[in-house]
Amino acid sequence: MATVCLSGGLVEKLHACASAGFDGVEIMDADLVAAYESPEEIRTLCERLGLSIDMYQPFRDVEGVDEDTFADNLRRAEAKFDVMERLGTDLILLCSNAGTATIDDDDLAADQLGRLADLAAQRGIRIAYEALAWGRFVDDYRHAWRIVQRADRPNLGVCLDSFHILSRGHDPAAIEEIPGEKIFFLQLADAPALDMDVLQWSRHHRLFPGEGDFDLTGFLGHVLRAGYAGPLSLEVFNDTFRQTAVFRTAAHARRSLTWLADRTALAERRDAGRLLDAQHAHGVDFVEISGDDLHDLDQLLDQLGFAFRGRHRSKPVRLWTAGGARIILNEQLRLESPRLTGFGLTVDDAAQASRRAGSLGADPVYRRTYRDEVELRAVASPDGTEVYWNDDDPETGWVSEFEGGTAVAAFTGDIDHINLSWAWQDFDEAVLFMRSVVALDAEPVAEVPGPRGLVRSQVMRSPDRVVRLPMNLAPPTAPVPHRHIAVRVEDAVAVARAAHAKGLGFLPVPHNYYDDLQARFALDADLFETLQSLDLLYDRDAGGEFIHFYTPTHGGVFLEIVERRGGYDGYGAPNAPVRLSAQRQVSTWTDAHGSGTPAERT
Amino acid sequence: MATVCLSGGLVEKLHACASAGFDGVEIMDADLVAAYESPEEIRTLCERLGLSIDMYQPFRDVEGVDEDTFADNLRRAEAKFDVMERLGTDLILLCSNAGTATIDDDDLAADQLGRLADLAAQRGIRIAYEALAWGRFVDDYRHAWRIVQRADRPNLGVCLDSFHILSRGHDPAAIEEIPGEKIFFLQLADAPALDMDVLQWSRHHRLFPGEGDFDLTGFLGHVLRAGYAGPLSLEVFNDTFRQTAVFRTAAHARRSLTWLADRTALAERRDAGRLLDAQHAHGVDFVEISGDDLHDLDQLLDQLGFAFRGRHRSKPVRLWTAGGARIILNEQLRLESPRLTGFGLTVDDAAQASRRAGSLGADPVYRRTYRDEVELRAVASPDGTEVYWNDDDPETGWVSEFEGGTAVAAFTGDIDHINLSWAWQDFDEAVLFMRSVVALDAEPVAEVPGPRGLVRSQVMRSPDRVVRLPMNLAPPTAPVPHRHIAVRVEDAVAVARAAHAKGLGFLPVPHNYYDDLQARFALDADLFETLQSLDLLYDRDAGGEFIHFYTPTHGGVFLEIVERRGGYDGYGAPNAPVRLSAQRQVSTWTDAHGSGTPAERT
Repeated sequence: MATVCLSGGLVEKLHACASAGFDGVEIMDADLVAAYESPEEIRTLCERLGLSIDMYQPFRDVEGVDEDTFADNLRRAEAKFDVMERLGTDLILLCSNAGTATIDDDDLAADQLGRLADLAAQRGIRIAYEALAWGRFVDDYRHAWRIVQRADRPNLGVCLDSFHILSRGHDPAAIEEIPGEKIFFLQLADAPALDMDVLQWSRHHRLFPGEGDFDLTGFLGHVLRAGYAGPLSLEVFNDTFRQTAVFRTAAHARRSLTWLADRTALAERRDAGRLLDAQHAHGVDFVEISGDDLHDLDQLLDQLGFAFRGRHRSKPVRLWTAGGARIILNEQLRLESPRLTGFGLTVDDAAQASRRAGSLGADPVYRRTYRDEVELRAVASPDGTEVYWNDDDPETGWVSEFEGGTAVAAFTGDIDHINLSWAWQDFDEAVLFMRSVVALDAEPVAEVPGPRGLVRSQVMRSPDRVVRLPMNLAPPTAPVPHRHIAVRVEDAVAVARAAHAKGLGFLPVPHNYYDDLQARFALDADLFETLQSLDLLYDRDAGGEFIHFYTPTHGGVFLEIVERRGGYDGYGAPNAPVRLSAQRQVSTWTDAHGSGTPAERT
Repeated sequence: MATVCLSGGLVEKLHACASAGFDGVEIMDADLVAAYESPEEIRTLCERLGLSIDMYQPFRDVEGVDEDTFADNLRRAEAKFDVMERLGTDLILLCSNAGTATIDDDDLAADQLGRLADLAAQRGIRIAYEALAWGRFVDDYRHAWRIVQRADRPNLGVCLDSFHILSRGHDPAAIEEIPGEKIFFLQLADAPALDMDVLQWSRHHRLFPGEGDFDLTGFLGHVLRAGYAGPLSLEVFNDTFRQTAVFRTAAHARRSLTWLADRTALAERRDAGRLLDAQHAHGVDFVEISGDDLHDLDQLLDQLGFAFRGRHRSKPVRLWTAGGARIILNEQLRLESPRLTGFGLTVDDAAQASRRAGSLGADPVYRRTYRDEVELRAVASPDGTEVYWNDDDPETGWVSEFEGGTAVAAFTGDIDHINLSWAWQDFDEAVLFMRSVVALDAEPVAEVPGPRGLVRSQVMRSPDRVVRLPMNLAPPTAPVPHRHIAVRVEDAVAVARAAHAKGLGFLPVPHNYYDDLQARFALDADLFETLQSLDLLYDRDAGGEFIHFYTPTHGGVFLEIVERRGGYDGYGAPNAPVRLSAQRQVSTWTDAHGSGTPAERT
């Protein structure tokens, strides 16, 4: 782990790395310079914590310069070698010159690197030369390797950094042409696919493996096939991690490495680093809403046409179902207002899913279980939202613990998707959690305009697309968006009519929306009239049609009823701005005037 | 003003525009679609508020398509023309096709635009065609103008948007070749110089004129010379503005337009739009720290060697001076902890500076003044920090209201710079405020790594470089950094020695910092020993040397003593990470253990 990934002072960073299970660190020069502890104290602390100091980094701007400048560079290097001796580490990272290089000549660069390496050799120090993506003359790892070959010193090798290579689109296959023992160090970072200045991209937007768009499994495969046997280290600069609690970021980083090692071992058919096989979810078992008092949600579910399936025989928990859609209302937690606090997935082997999660450092969830009750295995996601696994038929299993209700709902439904919003500091970690622990795939990121700024939307889904989790992130200074449960039905119009008849007020849709809808789609008059009269939203894509509506919000949660006609595969994203704006206006009016929807006011 | 610039619902946006003094708006289609009010209601509201609806926008993806698609596009257009009639506006923005265009043929594009224009002409509607920077085939305003010429319809012209033109680096001089009456609309936006995907740049990082790096004065000059006589409108998408109170953003936007009109009129030697001449500051009159109880700061200033100049004869305010450095301690405000709340500047004509500020919508500051007391003119900056102007000699003017002290300080100093940090929602507005109302220039933006993420630093300074305000912005989720006053002295070592002798503890500097300093600069042994023994920081650039140190922090403010040797022109930025890290560690230790610096603990 590179200490530069973490927030805070060097001592706390080292404690966090050890606590997360890392066995080595790269110490950033600037972290040591800002520390009150001497290099000897840091060395002793690392020894006690069981952390090897695998590298000191970075040393910059050495090669491609005139002789006077180079002489001063050797003097600078000597001073850093002194520090390294005090730290007890023998490897230094040398970045390709991005600042002072004036002479574009590989022979000169090789000569100067060779002389630096000879100076280092007197101290038993090795140098790992890295091509920065924004190096002045050397910005490609293949170029760095050519210079290292030309210098030809035993204590001079290369450092490979996935960001510097993949951000530039350089083919990593040529890594296999480098002898493994000349790859002195490996740094791993993921990143979102962004088209921007590579230095800014690197400084602000690196991610831990599994959170971005880089093919790190393939990348690491090339490095392993080259014969590299050194540490896998993470070097990730990111505005969020810099502000997140250091122990938490370290644990999050550790999970990312474990996940990547497993993926790579699987792809390379190796045993080392393998976890148990991932358990891919093939359905949503239930969704759980928690709160002090969930009577409003009982009423809402009843009005929608869900069946009250009963009370749990030993806990203050109720179950509502409609076909395969099961919603649990849990009044055990003392929450100020209702929240979507968990969901269950059906898998082939829940015990194995749970053991695999443990290997990935996921926190198990404890739930009191009585005799004869089904014990569901669960883990907590980054903000505490619980994920359960079940490999039994729920209808004959845990559902039978609920008593006194009926299974007869007004319609047959399924959970279409679960919309999970996250606070800014949880989002990237949640992507990794869902990818690694929950074994979902990430779709490309989209952005949706809302009244408080653009909302980033990242859909996670199971390989068979049955389980879908659209995950939303608002700007860090905006409130965390609400979460919602989308229930797929055969006939959304019928469900809407019946719910209206039972007195449910939907989120009111502006008339202007229907004018625009007609402009966009030229709907037939009957459908148009039906949509407008029932406050229904509509979308269409090449595959089919989408009809949906939203219930009012209770606390931090609401429901959506959706109907997919044909092969429509989206989530009604074009309607999201209208939905977000309507929710904001309704909440403003409700705050100002007590209850009363705009429909009632106008 | 484009309604898309503002947060919230359409009705509140319109009220905010009117309140800020705009006389017209461009209504964004999506804002209307999400509104519960009918187009007729919006039209009536605009009439009452005195806002003309200058344009409806945008209509997209019309030209360069096959005939079937185009027929549907005409149908879509008819529906929007209906809305425009209900709104009572006759101009629609048409963006160059970025989505559905498949045929790259100017004749076809001109033909289709012509047919759309003919349809619009039946309703008396005009079309302003705009080249989006990311248009599929048309991404240059000169190309859009060629197509408009080819279509040759009286109700078809171009819309020019400074962002789409300047972001692509297109030369705006050719605007003068377009007849003014064919420029149907003008949209203005500034932006920071960023090397990134232009669509993302546009969506997230546009700024109001005066806050970014575009030459909008030059741009607007070309447009005016072309003979354009229509509205100057702002279209600015920005994550911050989307989350800021709508009335405030509108006022901020209005100031930006006033400033730009003045600059352009000045450059073009026109009278229309001119403000009074800017009053350039030629010195810092004073800096003011406010708080409930400022005894700690009295002690600090005494230990540093400032002279206690006396108490104000009618207010609970004290003055400390050292040469031209005047620091006011003001206990009138009820603040939880000390803060840097204002500063004064010396100008040629304070009354004119104040009148000009009024024209720019700056809020005047009221301060109670008694008979025979000097009335200083002041305005409030975005977060309430007060800026004063004085055109008298302070020593014979307001300073004489302080009684009972002495002018004899231990050293002669001047205010070197005032470091002003801002909360994320105030930063861009503060840049515009300092540029327009305070008439300072903006230097290029830099980034400084701190323990809680990168700090953005933007130096504002007077043309003669005497007044310097480095302004800092931390990531929005990090705490707002402290502010500080830097006092320039002849001999920082002597000031440090004397302050040490009087018992002042400086911010302690890690020993590792000095090892690194020696590695970087190979200082002579005496200087090195002096720096290390006195906890002094050091920097060097091509022009000279910089020696400085920081006092402990009181509330949200601390002092820095600086000495500039030779032509050193920076602020010791390489030392900022060490300073930020040391301040964080000291505050952690102080929080945990009461007082006691690390130096005392180790």
